[in-house]
Amino acid sequence: MKYSFCNDYSTLAHPNVLNALIKYNDEQNEGYGEDIHTLNARNIIKDRFSCHNSDIYFLNGGTQTNLVLISHALKTYQGVLSCETGHINVHETGAIEGSGHKIITEKGKNGKLYPEDVLSALKKNHGPHMVKIKLVYISNSTEIGTIYSKKELMDLSKVCRDNDLYLFVDGARLSSAIMSKDNDIDPSDFAKYTDAFYIGGTKIGLLNGEALVINNDELKKDFIYQIKNRGALNAKGFLLGIQFEEIFKDDLYFLLGKKENELAYYLFSELEKIGIRPYFPLQTNQVFIILDNKMIEELEKEFIFEVWEDLNLHEKVVRLVCSYSTKKEYIDLLVKKIKNIELCK
Amino acid sequence: MKYSFCNDYSTLAHPNVLNALIKYNDEQNEGYGEDIHTLNARNIIKDRFSCHNSDIYFLNGGTQTNLVLISHALKTYQGVLSCETGHINVHETGAIEGSGHKIITEKGKNGKLYPEDVLSALKKNHGPHMVKIKLVYISNSTEIGTIYSKKELMDLSKVCRDNDLYLFVDGARLSSAIMSKDNDIDPSDFAKYTDAFYIGGTKIGLLNGEALVINNDELKKDFIYQIKNRGALNAKGFLLGIQFEEIFKDDLYFLLGKKENELAYYLFSELEKIGIRPYFPLQTNQVFIILDNKMIEELEKEFIFEVWEDLNLHEKVVRLVCSYSTKKEYIDLLVKKIKNIELCK
Amino acid sequence: MKYSFCNDYSTLAHPNVLNALIKYNDEQNEGYGEDIHTLNARNIIKDRFSCHNSDIYFLNGGTQTNLVLISHALKTYQGVLSCETGHINVHETGAIEGSGHKIITEKGKNGKLYPEDVLSALKKNHGPHMVKIKLVYISNSTEIGTIYSKKELMDLSKVCRDNDLYLFVDGARLSSAIMSKDNDIDPSDFAKYTDAFYIGGTKIGLLNGEALVINNDELKKDFIYQIKNRGALNAKGFLLGIQFEEIFKDDLYFLLGKKENELAYYLFSELEKIGIRPYFPLQTNQVFIILDNKMIEELEKEFIFEVWEDLNLHEKVVRLVCSYSTKKEYIDLLVKKIKNIELCK
Amino acid sequence: MKYSFCNDYSTLAHPNVLNALIKYNDEQNEGYGEDIHTLNARNIIKDRFSCHNSDIYFLNGGTQTNLVLISHALKTYQGVLSCETGHINVHETGAIEGSGHKIITEKGKNGKLYPEDVLSALKKNHGPHMVKIKLVYISNSTEIGTIYSKKELMDLSKVCRDNDLYLFVDGARLSSAIMSKDNDIDPSDFAKYTDAFYIGGTKIGLLNGEALVINNDELKKDFIYQIKNRGALNAKGFLLGIQFEEIFKDDLYFLLGKKENELAYYLFSELEKIGIRPYFPLQTNQVFIILDNKMIEELEKEFIFEVWEDLNLHEKVVRLVCSYSTKKEYIDLLVKKIKNIELCK
Repeated sequence: MKYSFCNDYSTLAHPNVLNALIKYNDEQNEGYGEDIHTLNARNIIKDRFSCHNSDIYFLNGGTQTNLVLISHALKTYQGVLSCETGHINVHETGAIEGSGHKIITEKGKNGKLYPEDVLSALKKNHGPHMVKIKLVYISNSTEIGTIYSKKELMDLSKVCRDNDLYLFVDGARLSSAIMSKDNDIDPSDFAKYTDAFYIGGTKIGLLNGEALVINNDELKKDFIYQIKNRGALNAKGFLLGIQFEEIFKDDLYFLLGKKENELAYYLFSELEKIGIRPYFPLQTNQVFIILDNKMIEELEKEFIFEVWEDLNLHEKVVRLVCSYSTKKEYIDLLVKKIKNIELCK
Repeated sequence: MKYSFCNDYSTLAHPNVLNALIKYNDEQNEGYGEDIHTLNARNIIKDRFSCHNSDIYFLNGGTQTNLVLISHALKTYQGVLSCETGHINVHETGAIEGSGHKIITEKGKNGKLYPEDVLSALKKNHGPHMVKIKLVYISNSTEIGTIYSKKELMDLSKVCRDNDLYLFVDGARLSSAIMSKDNDIDPSDFAKYTDAFYIGGTKIGLLNGEALVINNDELKKDFIYQIKNRGALNAKGFLLGIQFEEIFKDDLYFLLGKKENELAYYLFSELEKIGIRPYFPLQTNQVFIILDNKMIEELEKEFIFEVWEDLNLHEKVVRLVCSYSTKKEYIDLLVKKIKNIELCK
Repeated sequence: MKYSFCNDYSTLAHPNVLNALIKYNDEQNEGYGEDIHTLNARNIIKDRFSCHNSDIYFLNGGTQTNLVLISHALKTYQGVLSCETGHINVHETGAIEGSGHKIITEKGKNGKLYPEDVLSALKKNHGPHMVKIKLVYISNSTEIGTIYSKKELMDLSKVCRDNDLYLFVDGARLSSAIMSKDNDIDPSDFAKYTDAFYIGGTKIGLLNGEALVINNDELKKDFIYQIKNRGALNAKGFLLGIQFEEIFKDDLYFLLGKKENELAYYLFSELEKIGIRPYFPLQTNQVFIILDNKMIEELEKEFIFEVWEDLNLHEKVVRLVCSYSTKKEYIDLLVKKIKNIELCK
Repeated sequence: MKYSFCNDYSTLAHPNVLNALIKYNDEQNEGYGEDIHTLNARNIIKDRFSCHNSDIYFLNGGTQTNLVLISHALKTYQGVLSCETGHINVHETGAIEGSGHKIITEKGKNGKLYPEDVLSALKKNHGPHMVKIKLVYISNSTEIGTIYSKKELMDLSKVCRDNDLYLFVDGARLSSAIMSKDNDIDPSDFAKYTDAFYIGGTKIGLLNGEALVINNDELKKDFIYQIKNRGALNAKGFLLGIQFEEIFKDDLYFLLGKKENELAYYLFSELEKIGIRPYFPLQTNQVFIILDNKMIEELEKEFIFEVWEDLNLHEKVVRLVCSYSTKKEYIDLLVKKIKNIELCK
């Protein structure tokens, strides 16, 4: 069996989550998120993220959450601004366009959008022959593992509000972002500075599930109709309610993020010691390094990981992801293996 | 606490299913349905439904499955034919239309479509100013609990093939249909006589999940792209794979259907004894009866159920659903309560 | 050559309209409706329909106008209510659904919707599992040639406003409706009692073109983006501006409607004299009569017309449409032919 | 009155076209393109472009034609490859995405795509998490006035066929492209080397209208349903049929393209004489030059033209378009004005 550093969704769920399911398995609950667990989970999140006026919905996955929120927020002729590397732009098989909306992209920097990117996109897209940008999509942590600083978030928020744009944060890896040692954004800031954001669960201890938090009143009305219309309303909504209720007990959600970051930093520092070069700056649980082709070939015999892109004819960028369930012994084995291969050269 | 006969998705999952999740919780699995459990589950279904050439995908719920399959099968100007009572027509918040396709309806009979309905719809819809019907949607068991006979299915299949139409069966309650004492359709018939059908799991023992079986080669190509494009591809596909793998062990899937049907028949016969009138013919796990308004008001103090529709000013049609997890003692309590109220009149 | 009573769009345009095109052919004009003729045409319509606060856009045809307006007015999970016979429901190849919206239908009466139909549809469609009706679509004159009375329009308007629904009038044959001798709706009433309506040009003297009048402020914003997004924005917008400018000179628009109605009444009274039975009440330029199959077969040798539907095995409903360009001599020939065939029986 | 070099659609139509409308104004014709003129126009085009097996449809404008064809060709999860400067990507207000399809872009060169761009895009977009590219969109002449050589077209065609991609040519300015003195593509080559292309009429002598030629059998079926579904089917189809019939008489279509190219070359050579620098290579009827801000400000007092983009703080790129109806005397006046302003500096 090969050990996988391929992603942070290769195991089922944190044991507490499964135990909660067993605990409540005899209960009858109302369908479609009208149950008591969903209500509890909403209240816990409202407390923890200081967003008592927000509306919260639980959805099945990231692409679905992006699709449902964005298609709800936009009129047919409106578009989204995303960083070129944004998940909606690269890895969702055209789901946003499938719902009718163009994604305008800017290059950004380190996987992040900045106010000047927003202004540049607005300048280029104007008048009735071009899509009207209405929503700015960012992810935190980003697809390449970086995070926004509080100032960056506030500046982006300001340029959005000044230009009548919604700001939406894809938080598929929000736990990891918040628990980064570089992070200075408080959970309460997301409700303050964005129109909507989601708290990813699938990548951090749940079987499935993302908690979408809608802060802007304009986006709240009839949202459940939109969910159903997209085939995203779960009959057994309480499956998600119970899981989120559990994962936020004693801040487990954040502890798991802390743990996966620590594992990633450990992996990274061990790799640095043996001279492996990083490709993107490390801030969360995704480690991007440069390996040569021969090394990759050897490693693939024992480990699973993603080759991100070709760097040149001889080297590639490789992504190693640490999850809360990643075992330290396999990190050590991986590093050892790399070291051995290096020595044999 | 009120006891619910509201639907067949008010409890989490069959214990075996939860135990399987715990059993496999330490495993790493590949994402997006590329794992071994999904493969096993597919093979088990192929054996049990004799559909070795079919492609099988696992999705989260009924509306999603209908949406993904139908939008995959149709070109933009093509439409679906459904019974007026069809789930896609009544209870999916316009999800099919949301994907761009008109639903043409015929009245049908007892919740079912017949060849003459198909021919009638084709006759009314012709030429480039009208939607081109390309797919016939039926559900089995139907939304009102009835089932198709083998002859009815074969006749419908023939008229579809003769007219170049796809036939798709919504099997949200397929277990209950197959295990009806009136049923003469063999599991293998669904692959023989339809272009696609799905085997519902959410309503019969799974946390969530439907198994979509695609029989017609024309519909197979690139189907996973379509799933992703609709936001319906699960990162942890193995969550569904494990569940389906488990629910088909020792035919548990069918035994649960048998059980819920038996409970429904028991409920119905007890009600008949005290003079309660049925509204739709009973064939599966949904019992439709006529109650007067006063009775409904009294019952609602202790039980949860759905008022289906007004029959007249004084009476309503009520739906009582039995699930595999419905407790017989509560059926007895319900019947007793009704009897007592009758006596007090 | 057979003479056609098939529709009211079988000739190019009123000579005045073509002459106007020749007159302005040397002019340079701004594109996309930013020209002086479009501005003039807008002002003329604002005067004539007393709608100085409305926004007016010129589009190419009826289906396109319905599609652009309705998809602009609705959020993805919202639907339209239409009479079963409504053009959007029957003869637009699923264009409304193609833009993502379900059409809910009620039977109505004589091709018209009444407040009780709206209330009935609202009662049947409620809650997040059903489409949220947000717009009521009617046509005037209707697809079967009938017209709304002022009271009917006002009552419908009231029920819509009371229930937060938009009211939209498809006026493909608005000239004919307004000029009906049964009509008591003033042109100014359309802006008063509807949220949007369109003034059909294609069926009454223009090469092409419908003038969409948007009364409700909520629907005005960014409408030109919506037009472009649907591929409906004409580079040479002035082609439509010039035509509408011309057709409203000296009330030509209304005179042509009057003329076609008179021709239809003449045709109808001549047919009545020889015992031909009407099928729908005659109010505008469309004459629906009952003919036997043999008669239809004979007539089709010399005339073109539409067979509307089968009445029984021996008789069919036939539609004869009079246009402003229909020649009276051919009406006489048609009647004479029918008379002769009757005599030969 | 300012004279406009803003575009090639600022006048109504070539006089022959208007005269044809007058000539046929008394005729009755069948609706929806079933008339004799549409048939004739199709046959003329089939002869002139040697595409006797192609299907031809007449549509109202470029964006509409692109939208109808592309949404017909693609399944929901498939996307289009376009040059970054492509009309569908920049100036159609998200119409293609509005129909559900992502546009993947490559930078290309001089407004054109090359086989290496196609291969690069295919390499970057692979697997079910990314849109499946299925159609390559190019325009000829391009948005910046350049044209494809026969070899470039053939090479692109080959890479498309090798990779199971459709090749579609937006020919809004096809006349100008074919009549370029640099052109070596024969009209017959478009049917040979593309799956579909359109012959633009709106920008070259018609009131409105583009002739879409579908060469690939896969794209032919039910195309008229798609047109109607998009609100693009004209009741008076013969309006377009008559115009195309006329514009191809005695090769008028090509003569007008030749004329506008000659005017552009004349303008360009006069500008060169006085030291004005070109921005894009001149091949057709669009002249792109660099002017300083002061010059632009002065010119705008007497002429209308489009400022394409900022070159730097002091200079901008300006587009001057010559149409068949552009008057030489105004070209001379424009050049004279520029010369005078230069002298005054």
